[in-house]
Amino acid sequence: MILSVLDYASVLVFALTGALAASRAQLDIIGFAFLASLTAVGGGTLRDLLLDRNPVFWIADPGIVPTACGAALLVFFTAHRMESRLRWLLWLDSFALAVAVAAGTGVALALDQPPVIVLIMGVATGCFGGLMRDVVANEVPVILRQGELYATAALAGAGAALGLLELGLGRDVALLGCAGVTWALRAGSLRWGWMLPVYKSRPPREK
Amino acid sequence: MILSVLDYASVLVFALTGALAASRAQLDIIGFAFLASLTAVGGGTLRDLLLDRNPVFWIADPGIVPTACGAALLVFFTAHRMESRLRWLLWLDSFALAVAVAAGTGVALALDQPPVIVLIMGVATGCFGGLMRDVVANEVPVILRQGELYATAALAGAGAALGLLELGLGRDVALLGCAGVTWALRAGSLRWGWMLPVYKSRPPREK
Amino acid sequence: MILSVLDYASVLVFALTGALAASRAQLDIIGFAFLASLTAVGGGTLRDLLLDRNPVFWIADPGIVPTACGAALLVFFTAHRMESRLRWLLWLDSFALAVAVAAGTGVALALDQPPVIVLIMGVATGCFGGLMRDVVANEVPVILRQGELYATAALAGAGAALGLLELGLGRDVALLGCAGVTWALRAGSLRWGWMLPVYKSRPPREK
Repeated sequence: MILSVLDYASVLVFALTGALAASRAQLDIIGFAFLASLTAVGGGTLRDLLLDRNPVFWIADPGIVPTACGAALLVFFTAHRMESRLRWLLWLDSFALAVAVAAGTGVALALDQPPVIVLIMGVATGCFGGLMRDVVANEVPVILRQGELYATAALAGAGAALGLLELGLGRDVALLGCAGVTWALRAGSLRWGWMLPVYKSRPPREK
Repeated sequence: MILSVLDYASVLVFALTGALAASRAQLDIIGFAFLASLTAVGGGTLRDLLLDRNPVFWIADPGIVPTACGAALLVFFTAHRMESRLRWLLWLDSFALAVAVAAGTGVALALDQPPVIVLIMGVATGCFGGLMRDVVANEVPVILRQGELYATAALAGAGAALGLLELGLGRDVALLGCAGVTWALRAGSLRWGWMLPVYKSRPPREK
Repeated sequence: MILSVLDYASVLVFALTGALAASRAQLDIIGFAFLASLTAVGGGTLRDLLLDRNPVFWIADPGIVPTACGAALLVFFTAHRMESRLRWLLWLDSFALAVAVAAGTGVALALDQPPVIVLIMGVATGCFGGLMRDVVANEVPVILRQGELYATAALAGAGAALGLLELGLGRDVALLGCAGVTWALRAGSLRWGWMLPVYKSRPPREK
């Protein structure tokens, strides 16, 4: 039940970010729906293929992709009202990341995977939708933006879920904690510039 | 039977477009074969992985990839005669798109998937081979070219197949109609600039 | 046994190249781990999904991804000592390519696939990890570098394995020969510029 809610929430918010990327690339309405759907189901599809869940979640539930298309439609007709679409994209992406990490973590836990696989599934489910959006739409991948927490926030969130379970709390609480930690770190990074030290090369990047 | 013909036709024509992209990137002959094969089987492989068809079509039929390599060879030795390789690439791609959408739609129908999944499989099978070709070869993805019908043509084609079936026509006719509608829309877009209205942002794209 | 050794070796060396790409993109330590893991398991994951090996190798053996993360850590703290990180990346990549081609070839042989599928699996396993690394990290894909042997080396290596088996030699010898031939061709290309003739277009690339 909570897994299904998490999947829907992550689909909805990721679809909004995909549609915003489509607006930046000036696509038509079907292009909006395509990029929104790709972003919305990308991470979860990878998770389901890797874990051999059959059928993948949006084939099992044919309401998922229409939800993403509805979000695309909404953005197509309202994005011109936003002052900074990039800012909106980044903030919506932070919510989508948080929910998707919880969705990936929850599925791996439900399948009794070992901790290291749970962590990987949380990070992969969270990061791949946005990564595919950015590669296809020719944006700099969010995950590569220097001096921001992104994969780190996802990993910390998945780790928080494992920690809360270890403390004896229930699965739903653990997944809420997961989403909360992921979002807090990502939002802190967007708002106050929280970051880990980045690698600095002395010589300039060679060609 | 018709599914197998559609798969072969789409492999052949997509392979030609992959090889043309390789010629634009000035690769060697094995690079031509690699990019041709990737383009040729990309969409169908995604379809088969998502629908859990086992084995994927080009493992089930080991003649598929050699066909793609043959097409690569042909282009390697003849592309210098073409006046505009980009123009050839786009027109061949329109045929490949049409046939691949029909192939994807047909497989989903044969597996009794619900209409929304049939539409998605048609669009995904049609669009992903070319998308992978363009991402790998560093071209602007055809699907992102502004003011052109591409995903739209694929969606309309898959929808036409569903409509024709609903009218009581046979599956083979429906798939031919699917390919016809897809190609007509895409070709009209290439030749006469048919398009849907695109999203126009007032402020320039922020960095 | 030898398959497991090949998988670990290819994971380790590809992870080093992924971490070097992360250093060129100036990511933080988790970004290093992410890109190293993606590069390390990318090719083998594709192979396992295509051949429907279940679960994929790094889920079956949860020590794989921590190995990749260890390699990322190593590079994070030592890369500043390297004179040319691009040079290191290319040479390490040549070793990783050789080992991964052997790993892919070996798995396909163990599953009694026909020769054409064995060749494809060797090339795909070898080439996809590096391709994903380069697409995500915004580098020019190694496989597209003009006038270098890359896919060609992989294909020759996989072909060598088939030839050695045909001569009656054992599987382990065939896989060692495969890695040797792949590496020799790739290294010769890096060191002495060995290449196949590339396609030369007369007119400049159109936009």
